[in-house]
Amino acid sequence: MLLLVLDLLGIAVFAVSGALLAVRQRFDIVGVLVLATLTGLGGGWIRDVLIGVAPPTSLEDWRYLTVPVACGLVAFWFHPALERVDRPVIVFDAFGLGLFGVAGALKAAEHGAGPVAAAILGMVTCIGGGIIRDVLAGRAPVVLTTGELYAIPALAGSAVAAAGFEVGLPTVAVAIPAAALTIGWRLLAIWRGWKAPLPKSS
Amino acid sequence: MLLLVLDLLGIAVFAVSGALLAVRQRFDIVGVLVLATLTGLGGGWIRDVLIGVAPPTSLEDWRYLTVPVACGLVAFWFHPALERVDRPVIVFDAFGLGLFGVAGALKAAEHGAGPVAAAILGMVTCIGGGIIRDVLAGRAPVVLTTGELYAIPALAGSAVAAAGFEVGLPTVAVAIPAAALTIGWRLLAIWRGWKAPLPKSS
Amino acid sequence: MLLLVLDLLGIAVFAVSGALLAVRQRFDIVGVLVLATLTGLGGGWIRDVLIGVAPPTSLEDWRYLTVPVACGLVAFWFHPALERVDRPVIVFDAFGLGLFGVAGALKAAEHGAGPVAAAILGMVTCIGGGIIRDVLAGRAPVVLTTGELYAIPALAGSAVAAAGFEVGLPTVAVAIPAAALTIGWRLLAIWRGWKAPLPKSS
Repeated sequence: MLLLVLDLLGIAVFAVSGALLAVRQRFDIVGVLVLATLTGLGGGWIRDVLIGVAPPTSLEDWRYLTVPVACGLVAFWFHPALERVDRPVIVFDAFGLGLFGVAGALKAAEHGAGPVAAAILGMVTCIGGGIIRDVLAGRAPVVLTTGELYAIPALAGSAVAAAGFEVGLPTVAVAIPAAALTIGWRLLAIWRGWKAPLPKSS
Repeated sequence: MLLLVLDLLGIAVFAVSGALLAVRQRFDIVGVLVLATLTGLGGGWIRDVLIGVAPPTSLEDWRYLTVPVACGLVAFWFHPALERVDRPVIVFDAFGLGLFGVAGALKAAEHGAGPVAAAILGMVTCIGGGIIRDVLAGRAPVVLTTGELYAIPALAGSAVAAAGFEVGLPTVAVAIPAAALTIGWRLLAIWRGWKAPLPKSS
Repeated sequence: MLLLVLDLLGIAVFAVSGALLAVRQRFDIVGVLVLATLTGLGGGWIRDVLIGVAPPTSLEDWRYLTVPVACGLVAFWFHPALERVDRPVIVFDAFGLGLFGVAGALKAAEHGAGPVAAAILGMVTCIGGGIIRDVLAGRAPVVLTTGELYAIPALAGSAVAAAGFEVGLPTVAVAIPAAALTIGWRLLAIWRGWKAPLPKSS
């Protein structure tokens, strides 16, 4: 139950980021709802397609579909207010990141992915939606270009979860420290201004 | 038989729009054919991947592959003439929209998707190809940004079809009114200039 | 064994092209590694998704994952040196093209794709990664716009391989001439400056 709430909260944060970008790029109502939905659920859909879960779980569950649509409608009407709540959103987003990565890695492992593939698919669950959002909005994918420490903490948590599953630890014992690693690393990176390296100019 | 002809006609209209955009963006012959094919068939491929039909049906059927390739070749050589037949194409496109959405929703439902997922997948069948086309051609997806009433009538028809399937009505009794809803709404929107709302500027 | 080495070499050449483009576009380390991996392996993942192989084979094999990651790291640190070795890379790339197309077509055929679908999926294996690379980097897909003879030789070799499989020839007897056709045509096209046609301006 708590997990479901956290999961939906993570989806909501992602969906709002998609909807706000769509509003800024002057998408219409369809574009805002589609971008909110793809940003919130797209990473999980890519993961489900790659592990052969068809149709993707969240496409079948009205609770998972309602959240991004509601977020999209709120953003469509109240975007000026939403643009002002950056700080708390960054913290929710870190929790969503931890949860998505670990849940994604464990789901992949349960469907037969090996530990390396499961770790990668956990990261894909986290960053897939944002990449779809940025491609459709016509900008360089934020998660690949800004040096923000985002995909790396997600991969770390996913890898811990996948490794724990591989050696047979109980899910809870694996999921909590794995998610904590992602969330802690991400929050520390924001707080201390840590960045991933950029290539040297040639 | 009639259904097949209508289906191929819908694909042809989509394929021509992809091929003409490719010509305008100075794609080469490969690009024109690839864009024609992805625009004509890509929405159905995304649907098939999401419901676990592999390989996608239209990738296995030479009739479905021949149409976009032929359209691409015609557009490659005769694009100045094709650019001039906008009006009739908009009507064919509305028929293709109704057909694609309903057929897509019913196919998804037959492969085990629930009614909500089936309705969404019907819409995906309609708009997926055009979104791929626009992303590859480097422009904002028309279906998400122009306020054209396109995805919404498609979703409405798909939803009716999916609901009818869910309650066990015979396919024909479901498909005809569902497609008529999409086609009628779309044609009315063009004729009366109805638009989907855009976000207010902040 | 030789096949595996050639396969990994082809992936490496693709991965380097993705990593160098990412460096030029000022992606961060995550972006460089993701683009290297998607360029090297993405075409095969699209093929695997379309034929229902989940998870994709190369996502489960650490040797296939190590190559693009290593290439990405090398490109991240030594890109000025790498930018200077264009000539030999073009030859390796032609070999990779021949190999990817034929192996992709045969894999698709073995998983139940008909000969036409298998030929197309062989070409998709070749050009899918490069298209993902260019879309994520925000440029027009090179393989669709430059008139380079690239996809056409790949499709020719894939078609020969798929046809040979269809009539029941042994794999080796099919694969070698099919790959030779792609590689020879590609190298001749580079050497003689052959191009695919572009549309006439209207």
